[in-house]
Amino acid sequence: MATLVAPSNHSPKEDADVLWKAVKGWGTDESAIIAIMGHRNAAQRQQIRQAYHDIYQEDLIKRIESELSGNFEKAMYRWILEPADRYAVLANVAIKNLNSDYHVIVEIASVLKPEELLVVRRAYHNRYKHSLEEHVAAHTSGYLRQLVVGLLSSFRYDGDEINPILAKIEADILHEAIKNKKGKLDEVIRILTTRSKTQLKATFNRYRDDYGYSLSKKLLNDASDDFLKAVHAAIRCIDDHHKYYEKVLRNVLQGVGTDEDGLTRVVVTRAEKDLKDIKELYYKRNSIHLEDAVAKEISGDYKKFLLTLLGKEH
Amino acid sequence: MATLVAPSNHSPKEDADVLWKAVKGWGTDESAIIAIMGHRNAAQRQQIRQAYHDIYQEDLIKRIESELSGNFEKAMYRWILEPADRYAVLANVAIKNLNSDYHVIVEIASVLKPEELLVVRRAYHNRYKHSLEEHVAAHTSGYLRQLVVGLLSSFRYDGDEINPILAKIEADILHEAIKNKKGKLDEVIRILTTRSKTQLKATFNRYRDDYGYSLSKKLLNDASDDFLKAVHAAIRCIDDHHKYYEKVLRNVLQGVGTDEDGLTRVVVTRAEKDLKDIKELYYKRNSIHLEDAVAKEISGDYKKFLLTLLGKEH
Repeated sequence: MATLVAPSNHSPKEDADVLWKAVKGWGTDESAIIAIMGHRNAAQRQQIRQAYHDIYQEDLIKRIESELSGNFEKAMYRWILEPADRYAVLANVAIKNLNSDYHVIVEIASVLKPEELLVVRRAYHNRYKHSLEEHVAAHTSGYLRQLVVGLLSSFRYDGDEINPILAKIEADILHEAIKNKKGKLDEVIRILTTRSKTQLKATFNRYRDDYGYSLSKKLLNDASDDFLKAVHAAIRCIDDHHKYYEKVLRNVLQGVGTDEDGLTRVVVTRAEKDLKDIKELYYKRNSIHLEDAVAKEISGDYKKFLLTLLGKEH
Repeated sequence: MATLVAPSNHSPKEDADVLWKAVKGWGTDESAIIAIMGHRNAAQRQQIRQAYHDIYQEDLIKRIESELSGNFEKAMYRWILEPADRYAVLANVAIKNLNSDYHVIVEIASVLKPEELLVVRRAYHNRYKHSLEEHVAAHTSGYLRQLVVGLLSSFRYDGDEINPILAKIEADILHEAIKNKKGKLDEVIRILTTRSKTQLKATFNRYRDDYGYSLSKKLLNDASDDFLKAVHAAIRCIDDHHKYYEKVLRNVLQGVGTDEDGLTRVVVTRAEKDLKDIKELYYKRNSIHLEDAVAKEISGDYKKFLLTLLGKEH
């Protein structure tokens, strides 16, 4: 479930007026921007952007970018974008910093539904005049390239059919390849990039049954290079993306790892989808409410905005 | 330009009646089937199929399959299918015979426009409950798998922008990799599977300028293994698919090679698109009209049907 609290009725024109008053002249009324934008869903935000453009002949996103700064600007900019376009931007930013951020690409490619991923790839074309896989391939090499480009390019079958014999065979292939490190990595890539998610979940479950621990646990202990780390991220995103996101948030809020933008990314991409489920997992795992952990870590308008998207009334 | 001659007005119900009379009872009126189906475009054929189903409560395609046989049946079956579904069937047949037929996969992946290829991939899901790349990957290995799955999975940027510096750099990469055989084959795959077709054509032209012969000519002389043969097919399909198809037809009609279904495949997939251009190229290259070459090679209803699709009045 979503955490975003948005009214069923709103007037795009009135919202545009409020935003215009918030940005015009000296100073900026950040609270007014949060009060509007923090309570509007994707369709409503696009209507506001259109209304603002029609009335004031300027792009709301550009205006807000120039008025705000730092993490707050970054979060608001990402939030206002239409979701597929936002993923295109997130992917492009990650490509520019691919040594540390390829997990963002893996995450987008592995969490989105097959049809959603196609829409993101189309948005990437429109914005960057290249394909997403073209940019990723040009910045990677070897097995990592094969895996990440394969994940991005795949258009998985989205049905619920499971082939249990195949799950057994491929659980064994994954085990052998990952145990022996160098063995059959191209088979790991084939399985992870082409099988349906339902089939892969069955394979991961079979792995647990046969080997007594999860494949991602095995990888967490062994993942020494970027390729295996990417395999690990892909498996976690496919197997249970709520748990994956909970971990991203935990790492950020505990200052572990390098995913600095993880907090903004998870909140803006999931607030309209399933951030409530992620919040519940977070509380279960950490015995602290996600809102409280966020409130302790960040401050100012950035904090106010993320807490609004997290559904906290204040 | 197309060779198909179809009326702008037709009655799906009347067509369905004629077809029903042609298939009911003992014997089949093949000429009546050809007279209708050989003169209806894709949208009209689907309307007829729907009307036939509404009136006679049976699937026209299944009925026609059971009434006809041999190459004529194969051609009529492929022709009646909706184009994306037809490509899905052609790809699936090729996968089952992948040792000799992977060029059909390469052809589909490389000739279709990016958005058309997505529609075919969706049709493959619907028909086979697996993704196209999943089946291809399971039946291939090594560089051949990487290339063919990459071609199929790619969603190329479809714009007209050219980067001439990149064309020069990548012409050199292709030259080095193919000259030295083992060198940088993963870079050949990256370039062919991710760059836009416009960019690739610029790269191939640059290759011609710098090396004095075409890359596909170079490969034709050197292509010893399946991987290089697939590279060759991909380059020819991307560079000039009319010339590629002319060559497929020439090989079939001169009894060269193993692409037995090539004649049917080219005629049914191109009759509504650009078979006229391919015919013109054929005549230029072979000094015999394609219709005459076809008429000499095949016979019976199969011949009558293909000549109808080729636009020959008789």
